[in-house]
Amino acid sequence: MGSSFGTIFKLTTFGESHGAAIGGVIDGVPANIVIDLDAVQAELGRRRPGQSAIVTQRNETDTVQFLSGIFEGKTTGMPIGFIIPNDDQKSDDYAHIKDVYRPSHADYTYDKKYGNRDYRGGGRSSARETACRVVAGAVAKQVLEVIGIDIVAYVDQVGTVKCSGEVDYNEIENNDVRCPNVEDAAKMEALIKEVRKAGDTIGGSIVCEINHVPPGLGEPVFDKLHAELGKAMLSINAVKGFEYGSGFSCIEMKGSEHNDIFNQDGSTRSNHSGGIQGGISNGMPINMRIAFKPVATLIQEQETLNRQDEMVKMQGKGRHDPCVVPRAVPIVEAMAAITLLDFYLRNKAVQL
Amino acid sequence: MGSSFGTIFKLTTFGESHGAAIGGVIDGVPANIVIDLDAVQAELGRRRPGQSAIVTQRNETDTVQFLSGIFEGKTTGMPIGFIIPNDDQKSDDYAHIKDVYRPSHADYTYDKKYGNRDYRGGGRSSARETACRVVAGAVAKQVLEVIGIDIVAYVDQVGTVKCSGEVDYNEIENNDVRCPNVEDAAKMEALIKEVRKAGDTIGGSIVCEINHVPPGLGEPVFDKLHAELGKAMLSINAVKGFEYGSGFSCIEMKGSEHNDIFNQDGSTRSNHSGGIQGGISNGMPINMRIAFKPVATLIQEQETLNRQDEMVKMQGKGRHDPCVVPRAVPIVEAMAAITLLDFYLRNKAVQL
Amino acid sequence: MGSSFGTIFKLTTFGESHGAAIGGVIDGVPANIVIDLDAVQAELGRRRPGQSAIVTQRNETDTVQFLSGIFEGKTTGMPIGFIIPNDDQKSDDYAHIKDVYRPSHADYTYDKKYGNRDYRGGGRSSARETACRVVAGAVAKQVLEVIGIDIVAYVDQVGTVKCSGEVDYNEIENNDVRCPNVEDAAKMEALIKEVRKAGDTIGGSIVCEINHVPPGLGEPVFDKLHAELGKAMLSINAVKGFEYGSGFSCIEMKGSEHNDIFNQDGSTRSNHSGGIQGGISNGMPINMRIAFKPVATLIQEQETLNRQDEMVKMQGKGRHDPCVVPRAVPIVEAMAAITLLDFYLRNKAVQL
Amino acid sequence: MGSSFGTIFKLTTFGESHGAAIGGVIDGVPANIVIDLDAVQAELGRRRPGQSAIVTQRNETDTVQFLSGIFEGKTTGMPIGFIIPNDDQKSDDYAHIKDVYRPSHADYTYDKKYGNRDYRGGGRSSARETACRVVAGAVAKQVLEVIGIDIVAYVDQVGTVKCSGEVDYNEIENNDVRCPNVEDAAKMEALIKEVRKAGDTIGGSIVCEINHVPPGLGEPVFDKLHAELGKAMLSINAVKGFEYGSGFSCIEMKGSEHNDIFNQDGSTRSNHSGGIQGGISNGMPINMRIAFKPVATLIQEQETLNRQDEMVKMQGKGRHDPCVVPRAVPIVEAMAAITLLDFYLRNKAVQL
Repeated sequence: MGSSFGTIFKLTTFGESHGAAIGGVIDGVPANIVIDLDAVQAELGRRRPGQSAIVTQRNETDTVQFLSGIFEGKTTGMPIGFIIPNDDQKSDDYAHIKDVYRPSHADYTYDKKYGNRDYRGGGRSSARETACRVVAGAVAKQVLEVIGIDIVAYVDQVGTVKCSGEVDYNEIENNDVRCPNVEDAAKMEALIKEVRKAGDTIGGSIVCEINHVPPGLGEPVFDKLHAELGKAMLSINAVKGFEYGSGFSCIEMKGSEHNDIFNQDGSTRSNHSGGIQGGISNGMPINMRIAFKPVATLIQEQETLNRQDEMVKMQGKGRHDPCVVPRAVPIVEAMAAITLLDFYLRNKAVQL
Repeated sequence: MGSSFGTIFKLTTFGESHGAAIGGVIDGVPANIVIDLDAVQAELGRRRPGQSAIVTQRNETDTVQFLSGIFEGKTTGMPIGFIIPNDDQKSDDYAHIKDVYRPSHADYTYDKKYGNRDYRGGGRSSARETACRVVAGAVAKQVLEVIGIDIVAYVDQVGTVKCSGEVDYNEIENNDVRCPNVEDAAKMEALIKEVRKAGDTIGGSIVCEINHVPPGLGEPVFDKLHAELGKAMLSINAVKGFEYGSGFSCIEMKGSEHNDIFNQDGSTRSNHSGGIQGGISNGMPINMRIAFKPVATLIQEQETLNRQDEMVKMQGKGRHDPCVVPRAVPIVEAMAAITLLDFYLRNKAVQL
Repeated sequence: MGSSFGTIFKLTTFGESHGAAIGGVIDGVPANIVIDLDAVQAELGRRRPGQSAIVTQRNETDTVQFLSGIFEGKTTGMPIGFIIPNDDQKSDDYAHIKDVYRPSHADYTYDKKYGNRDYRGGGRSSARETACRVVAGAVAKQVLEVIGIDIVAYVDQVGTVKCSGEVDYNEIENNDVRCPNVEDAAKMEALIKEVRKAGDTIGGSIVCEINHVPPGLGEPVFDKLHAELGKAMLSINAVKGFEYGSGFSCIEMKGSEHNDIFNQDGSTRSNHSGGIQGGISNGMPINMRIAFKPVATLIQEQETLNRQDEMVKMQGKGRHDPCVVPRAVPIVEAMAAITLLDFYLRNKAVQL
Repeated sequence: MGSSFGTIFKLTTFGESHGAAIGGVIDGVPANIVIDLDAVQAELGRRRPGQSAIVTQRNETDTVQFLSGIFEGKTTGMPIGFIIPNDDQKSDDYAHIKDVYRPSHADYTYDKKYGNRDYRGGGRSSARETACRVVAGAVAKQVLEVIGIDIVAYVDQVGTVKCSGEVDYNEIENNDVRCPNVEDAAKMEALIKEVRKAGDTIGGSIVCEINHVPPGLGEPVFDKLHAELGKAMLSINAVKGFEYGSGFSCIEMKGSEHNDIFNQDGSTRSNHSGGIQGGISNGMPINMRIAFKPVATLIQEQETLNRQDEMVKMQGKGRHDPCVVPRAVPIVEAMAAITLLDFYLRNKAVQL
């Protein structure tokens, strides 16, 4: 349970960080959509370890193999099965933590829940699993492109450094942080390097915008568009908070400030609603902000607990991300794409 | 679609604010649990309009009628069907908005989606629907009580007034705002009255804590405990943001500060994880914070759009809440209870 | 769990035979469909006890009350909540079986599963629950009528009496058995009366045909159209078998006989496929046959077991059906309608 | 949609007969169960083409590769991903049917539904997909073995040859037909060879028995145990009918004959109920019978339709099964195992 996301366009994933492969099944893909396989691989490249100086230096190629559902370059409507072989299945690196619960990881909770311990790099709880989301998201993006919906995400903040300058989407992929302002990007990069040098890690946030969404996507009551987007984002490793539109700033606002007054064409003058009213898209841009905690693996000695209920010292090893947000940008986009496409397809059944 | 929540313990609701009744079906209720019907009604009383001077003065009794699933005072394991008749089905009050899309309501989006307009007080998009959540939550709470899990929520902020004093849970139900600090409560109440006098409304936030949760609740990957809690809360009317544990403050933290170091008994010294690690409860208190926007209905003239694509003036009427958070406290608790019980039951299948 | 059927057009039911009411929620109803409430009530009339001399003489009016989802005579797209109050909630009639497990009823299995005993007329296991299916089916039929799909069911066999004469659909509602041949109907009726006189009961079968189904309904692999129809029918009380198209007779056939050769317009010369190939409708009539066991309640003395593990004598009382098929015809049609509409709506998402 | 089966123990499959691989994800596997991988492969061997003289002579090794969810020989509780590479991906064999709709295959219906044609051996509609069910079923069987439930299926009839002699389960795997009576097996085998010689095919039926099922499995109303078993079986390629317990023979029976009278230990003297009462297991053996149509691919010339709406002649080629039932036995067992385990796990949530 818990390995599937979506109702019509549905992703089911499997795989541990150090098993033979990770992979998944994408069901409910609309038929007859041309799929650019290189574009899918390129999205994986945006998430890939070793892509820049400020991310983990593990070397994984993350090559996706499609096994079904695409024939003669197009989707057939059949489920798309895919795998991403794990290049490095050696679990030797993790021998030192075999019986140790790392602080603020999932080691302790998985053991309590399942009664066993897959110590190989976090097993299923590793963020490696998100590569499968990126694959499904890349497929969803290509379908959304046909519909006309587009999605962009970027790093909004790293530690105390905010993206406060002008936002230029064209700059996002021009710097290693994926910040849309070159100067702020430089400050963020400097901070990440400083933190890494200390063997420490740092939190950050990502903003995601979805444009050209037709009005009507989302369902009343429990499956509100922003509720499902919230779940999608909160299910990404390390996420601690989600807000959309005015978000937490709405607390201090009055209704007379917050209400989005209509223009005659149905658009609104302000967009505190973040493109969603009553859980349903209103045609304005959807925007949201997602908070990521600092990575729990430190290159420092920490005191912790082991499976024998003893307090022990552990020393972080290996090649880990000092800050997760640069690599999380394509994951956020992927989850947004999967969610939007699912609601687009659900909406087709609303009227005959 | 979208009218159900949960996988094993599952609530399905129906009903519009001015139809004959609202109601629902609670499926997957564990058998042989003693249900205190008065306690369920009392929870509805906490959400009821007209309960105090700072909420809407509409007079609704909100009397729940249980139709099935309870026999000789206990749950049988069969679905619990219930209805709450609508005392006031007159829709005359809404004649003035029949063709008008109220700003920042769901009028426009529902019309675009469904191609029709139920103008009677917001129809299905009205927060009246949340009364059904409170009924199911009250049932869930009584099951959780047998298990030993308890849930408390309170108002944390109204406008710029924060609950900054000492928190005493015993005070929550002693004041109309449901703030656990008497002095802060008084300030909040004063602010709400001032705002109402101006025909305006104000935002706020609610904190929810869940205690004595056994380790192991929540599922890996997509159905993480906090992801489902996030969806549960974001699905409540007027919610714009959700955070748990360190929440948005994690952005500015370092891993060395943020990591929760274990004690020898498996508890942790700090609780930035908010009781959840890798999506699974770790036995520490679960805490979260939810942002509510200011109510969109103002007793002021506003410019807006109608179904004929004309800009018109509208004047808010009726008896509306100046601030939604005092009445939203039991709704937040209800959604927390429904979610936790569902995960408790899901967890029973994890090992033979 | 188990109280819902369907994926997009989804029925959730509740209620016991002697509780306050039975009822349900129909979610995923397409918006803007005119609903004839009298036609819904008329369908309930076809299932109603006391409607003729050969069914149970219990007197229930089975009046449905719609509580939501229909406004100004049309569906709004919101869930339709409804209840059917139980006229007779007295459980005195059942005092004699309070601790007794009736043979071939669900008394024993429910007690073993849930650890309690709702002895009032079978509680949730009573076929009274099927009235809710008839309501949802009647709504589905009205939507299918707009699409152009129509459904008819009739009694095909009672005991050894088969409907072997000419089939005239116009005759079905002209006789109490609901057999489309007047002479066979008379023989069936005579048999039912004879069996009842002996305090006994008799089995029977129902044929259902669905016409004007567009090609393309049904999903590959697990959710084949006939697999879901089979589940739908097998979920009706007393059903022991399901076949479609050539059904069990296919066992003795050769491929060269069984294959349905195409006509140039895509129709087929024979219809052993029963309108479904590879789980997907091909545009030919869908037909199926459903076997119903004899009712388990006899007006005879039977030996049986009680909750104290003692063998006891019990004497059937009350007003029961000697044969279930006449009243099961509208239930079969209802389940067919619910299933077909659900697949029609699912199919809308297959291509953009 | 339609590629998943089960609610807690859930199988999702992908793959076409001539793609790179078929495979699937098994979610909800209970943790800490020892898995015998050779036993899984052996089950695939029972379904494998080329295993005997009376099945298709295609040569496929059907080697399953497990990619996740099993660590140090045991299930971890994480989803089990697996693939079965397709040895022979050449689609040349199918060039002659590229534009042709084969009679009583899914060619026509898939094209109408999806608007494209995967002509490579039936694509997704091929029974090759059932290999994935066998893998999941083999895993389920090993879990059921721990619980104590066992499942056996066998060929009951081929054409007009019934298994009428004594049934000895030990004989099932001793003959190529999988019939539990040696003499009947010989007759069936002779019939299959005769039919094949004529380029024709023949139908058959399979009986499945499930023993040592604890009382209480199955859900009331829609998810009755036999309804889900019926869906499971009807979803297997070529199945046209399903019955359990007394099945279609109940039509001609009286209640006084059909009722299963209790013994004092809760067992029953007869078992017309087939081990299921009110949709819930009663502890008696569950038995069911499934009808399979003759294979549609003939080695004969047939007239048919092509995509250009022309009537054409086609000549069956290739190596096909003359009768599907010998190879379908492990598939029936697999679907029974998947269904039973799912209900076993669902039942754990019924009482606290």
